[in-house]
Amino acid sequence: MTGLENIPDIVVSRLPIYLRALSYLREDRVRVTSSELGDYLGISSAQIRKDLSHFGGFGKQGTGYNVPKLVEALRKILKVEREWAVALVGAGAIGHALSHYDGFADYGFRISMIFDNDPAKIGAQINGFEVYDAAHLAELIPQRNIALAMLAVPPEAAQQVADALVQAGIRGILNYAPINLVVPDTVRVQYIDPVVHLQRITYYLTEPPEAPEGG
Amino acid sequence: MTGLENIPDIVVSRLPIYLRALSYLREDRVRVTSSELGDYLGISSAQIRKDLSHFGGFGKQGTGYNVPKLVEALRKILKVEREWAVALVGAGAIGHALSHYDGFADYGFRISMIFDNDPAKIGAQINGFEVYDAAHLAELIPQRNIALAMLAVPPEAAQQVADALVQAGIRGILNYAPINLVVPDTVRVQYIDPVVHLQRITYYLTEPPEAPEGG
Repeated sequence: MTGLENIPDIVVSRLPIYLRALSYLREDRVRVTSSELGDYLGISSAQIRKDLSHFGGFGKQGTGYNVPKLVEALRKILKVEREWAVALVGAGAIGHALSHYDGFADYGFRISMIFDNDPAKIGAQINGFEVYDAAHLAELIPQRNIALAMLAVPPEAAQQVADALVQAGIRGILNYAPINLVVPDTVRVQYIDPVVHLQRITYYLTEPPEAPEGG
Repeated sequence: MTGLENIPDIVVSRLPIYLRALSYLREDRVRVTSSELGDYLGISSAQIRKDLSHFGGFGKQGTGYNVPKLVEALRKILKVEREWAVALVGAGAIGHALSHYDGFADYGFRISMIFDNDPAKIGAQINGFEVYDAAHLAELIPQRNIALAMLAVPPEAAQQVADALVQAGIRGILNYAPINLVVPDTVRVQYIDPVVHLQRITYYLTEPPEAPEGG
């Protein structure tokens, strides 16, 4: 594990996919070859071997990878061998969906607090979480030692909330608002926008269908 | 616009980001330089120019890009100068959030039908959409000429539903279930999983905070 700072982002982007697939596999088996993993993920086995070789390599040609060991190694590389407290800002439809997502704990995350600025929502419970007043972000986030936030507010509010989160010490934001955020270089942002992902599909579709009838 | 088949996926992945940023910008101004766009997006101006040069280039050094023209060109490249009908499968928390997302129409998409297999949900209305029985996917999707689906069902059901969607002629799936889907090469899949995106953040965070107190 040397030279981590030089790993291309595209390689990093595949590591969570490998971890997720291997975590499922782990229930059934102890070893997997790069070919088997590649077939499952639709990624070439050469790509998988090359990606993992950045971190020292974890298998020998022919014998495959030890699944539990590779899972542990990937959890360390992605720094999710521990649990990260996450603030969720926005108790609307996306916030509700995220509060019900039950995959966080297995992969290193835990929603710690939910914030909103709507008086009708503040103090209410969402899936067992109390909703706090977003005006108190600045005190509560450092108190709880929260480093990550999921931002699920309307686009017109997103930049202002992001500024407040950065002020409060947040170092990574998962942004569901469909706008680009301007943040200091020290803060990482990831974007989730269905339109962006749908366009990455339509780009490859060669024959658009005719306009749908009715509906 | 030549050699589209050779454009790296990483370049394609940035085009929707450019389109979204330019669509916002269009309300304010007619020209933008690659430096201005790069500062806004946190992407180098050289990268932006290189990405766009794959499609013939759209500006001259110094004068910048014509925003409305570049928006139109990107919409054509991404094939969203038309509107795509999209099926939403799964009327749970994520399905609700998606049914309320109001950014689809501006970017080339329209939810056409919502499906679920829960008798309590079938026939109900969600944000003005009737929920149809997922057992009728196979007839209804070809009738409505739907090429795209958003999959928001529990992970244990996702592969089976994906198989049915592929059978029904769906050519692209935006998958919210946190599992990898096995589909024919002719079908494109994009994944949205908050855990995967959060791990792409934590990878880069160098000093995990101490374990949070309480909470």
